[in-house]
Amino acid sequence: MALITLTTDFGIGSSYVAEVKGEILSIAPQVTIVDITHAVAPQSVMQGAIVLKQTTSVFPDGTIHVAVVDPGVGTKRSILLVYVNGQYFVGPDNGLLSLVVGAAAKIREVDRPEFWRPNISPTFHGRDIMGPVAAHLANGVSPSRLSSAFTKQPVALTLPQPTVENNAIDGEVVYIDSFGNLITNISTASVRQVTGPIRIEFKGRSVDFVSTYAEATRGATIALIGSSGWLEIAISSGNARETLKAETADPVRVVGG
Amino acid sequence: MALITLTTDFGIGSSYVAEVKGEILSIAPQVTIVDITHAVAPQSVMQGAIVLKQTTSVFPDGTIHVAVVDPGVGTKRSILLVYVNGQYFVGPDNGLLSLVVGAAAKIREVDRPEFWRPNISPTFHGRDIMGPVAAHLANGVSPSRLSSAFTKQPVALTLPQPTVENNAIDGEVVYIDSFGNLITNISTASVRQVTGPIRIEFKGRSVDFVSTYAEATRGATIALIGSSGWLEIAISSGNARETLKAETADPVRVVGG
Amino acid sequence: MALITLTTDFGIGSSYVAEVKGEILSIAPQVTIVDITHAVAPQSVMQGAIVLKQTTSVFPDGTIHVAVVDPGVGTKRSILLVYVNGQYFVGPDNGLLSLVVGAAAKIREVDRPEFWRPNISPTFHGRDIMGPVAAHLANGVSPSRLSSAFTKQPVALTLPQPTVENNAIDGEVVYIDSFGNLITNISTASVRQVTGPIRIEFKGRSVDFVSTYAEATRGATIALIGSSGWLEIAISSGNARETLKAETADPVRVVGG
Repeated sequence: MALITLTTDFGIGSSYVAEVKGEILSIAPQVTIVDITHAVAPQSVMQGAIVLKQTTSVFPDGTIHVAVVDPGVGTKRSILLVYVNGQYFVGPDNGLLSLVVGAAAKIREVDRPEFWRPNISPTFHGRDIMGPVAAHLANGVSPSRLSSAFTKQPVALTLPQPTVENNAIDGEVVYIDSFGNLITNISTASVRQVTGPIRIEFKGRSVDFVSTYAEATRGATIALIGSSGWLEIAISSGNARETLKAETADPVRVVGG
Repeated sequence: MALITLTTDFGIGSSYVAEVKGEILSIAPQVTIVDITHAVAPQSVMQGAIVLKQTTSVFPDGTIHVAVVDPGVGTKRSILLVYVNGQYFVGPDNGLLSLVVGAAAKIREVDRPEFWRPNISPTFHGRDIMGPVAAHLANGVSPSRLSSAFTKQPVALTLPQPTVENNAIDGEVVYIDSFGNLITNISTASVRQVTGPIRIEFKGRSVDFVSTYAEATRGATIALIGSSGWLEIAISSGNARETLKAETADPVRVVGG
Repeated sequence: MALITLTTDFGIGSSYVAEVKGEILSIAPQVTIVDITHAVAPQSVMQGAIVLKQTTSVFPDGTIHVAVVDPGVGTKRSILLVYVNGQYFVGPDNGLLSLVVGAAAKIREVDRPEFWRPNISPTFHGRDIMGPVAAHLANGVSPSRLSSAFTKQPVALTLPQPTVENNAIDGEVVYIDSFGNLITNISTASVRQVTGPIRIEFKGRSVDFVSTYAEATRGATIALIGSSGWLEIAISSGNARETLKAETADPVRVVGG
């Protein structure tokens, strides 16, 4: 049973997603397709990259992830076929895959039109190239037939890195989830390096560090380790993005005792 | 062909849903997964319970329904595995399953970590416990291996009950659907007990009782028996929630002749 | 592997969609179901018809498309079973299928209650009639057992047609996609008939005609041939519907040199 996932900025409810699925199922009718999300902010390559990093590792070996946040569609940007940690990724070379690609990744360039749709729209490579390539891969066509060696350096995004100094960490919000929780770039491991009673500072207030949402008083602003292992700021039974008017890049500080 | 459904408050477009699916498909690749909805209002256990009650009975015998509206995640609340009317339900013991659980239900407690994800996040038991348990159940692992006898009384929600008196029914709006139609707690059977010409009163106005949306003048406020057998208030070709500024708990009165 | 698609105005996140799926999977458990969209504007038969026309051709032969935008549900309007271009369509006779139905279509009327749900709600024929009929068709029950000859003329919608005169085309916006791009009724073929340098006029401004979104300056209003072969107006890295306050029926003019 082959598994293909889709991550795009096409918008919730977009019928463009169905066009990609129709094309995939025309080539590989037996495949299971899972939507990761289609709610990536339009053209936000960074947000798409973070979603892939947060989500794809739970999928089984052999899963094929198709990612389409592609403001450069129709230009000369390459389309990559990446194999890393037992999974495949197909997407544009614009940084979208760069947070899942490590040193061990095998990176190839998709360049064999005989596996694409016959007529390529310059605005919809998700349907016309990436979907078909993923479907052929699901059918057992080897990467060496679908793509060639990629000899350039792929475009890389870098997440802002927190600084650790004087028993304190200075990080920032990098992603906001569907509950309005604010996910930071501060890892569990780095929080553990801070000694003494921990205090979190966000937007001029001191925020309690808890283990579960339910520990806090309803409506309290809290910090906790989220389900992917990053520190996050939340409001118990509430929406932190709205209530705190928070945005990505807002600074977050962890201070030891 | 095993079938697993998902009902959550994760939000439309949330990639957390995909994490649950990835975990399920890692364990049970052959399963079919159907989304019931992810648009339950955040932490609204009652709304989730009503959706399950309205929706799950159309699914075939053996379907496994995973329900995650779980404000107490990470606390000592139990996770239930329920078998009732030929179907399975996995969800927190907070009332979410209580409108589908009747006297005939077999209720067990999920307590065997060997069937869970190795590292349990205190904030995401949908992915780490409930999804995997459902997947193992789909693979044919018996409830007796996945869970133990549940000896406590499960948490129960009760829908407000209408009163029937003097050839009239006093009920209320309990749920608002995606069209803005106002679904009440007044059943077909109780409407039939009212004799003479029927008049519906809502928000100070008298509302026509019709059989189909199309019978009414465009824009008219109407009452009819909805597709699950409950009286509902609607606006023909319109949105009753918005136009009438209606909310759950708004009173609805059925008066006989 | 049978494939059924769903196109409705039930709304994103609506659990009514899941009721249709539960009914289908009760009859045909092995079927693959793909959502085309559930975001058709409520009761907008024309919008649903355009989505079907834009989307369904990418699906493989034998696909069964169920379409439910059905303001006349429960009245005497017929339900059609159409076979055209190797695919099946099931939907109400209100024009919804009329943009995919050509002269070669075989049109039949769904009228065999033995293949429906036992109790038909007057408000939900998608779940009670159309879903079950599609599922039985997927199971190999022949159209001649599910339906009868349709002897009337089906309801037809007509897209507004552009006029071509004096080396210029006068068309209009007929559909707005999930990015806010404005899709017109002007085809690639008709644009090619205009000679000399092409200029596009929209809302009193002159709009550049480009090949890809990326060619334009960020924020520029552009016109290009979209992925289904129709001229569309867009804003590079933006939302044309919002920024230009555009609506369907807004006029668009293509002028030659």
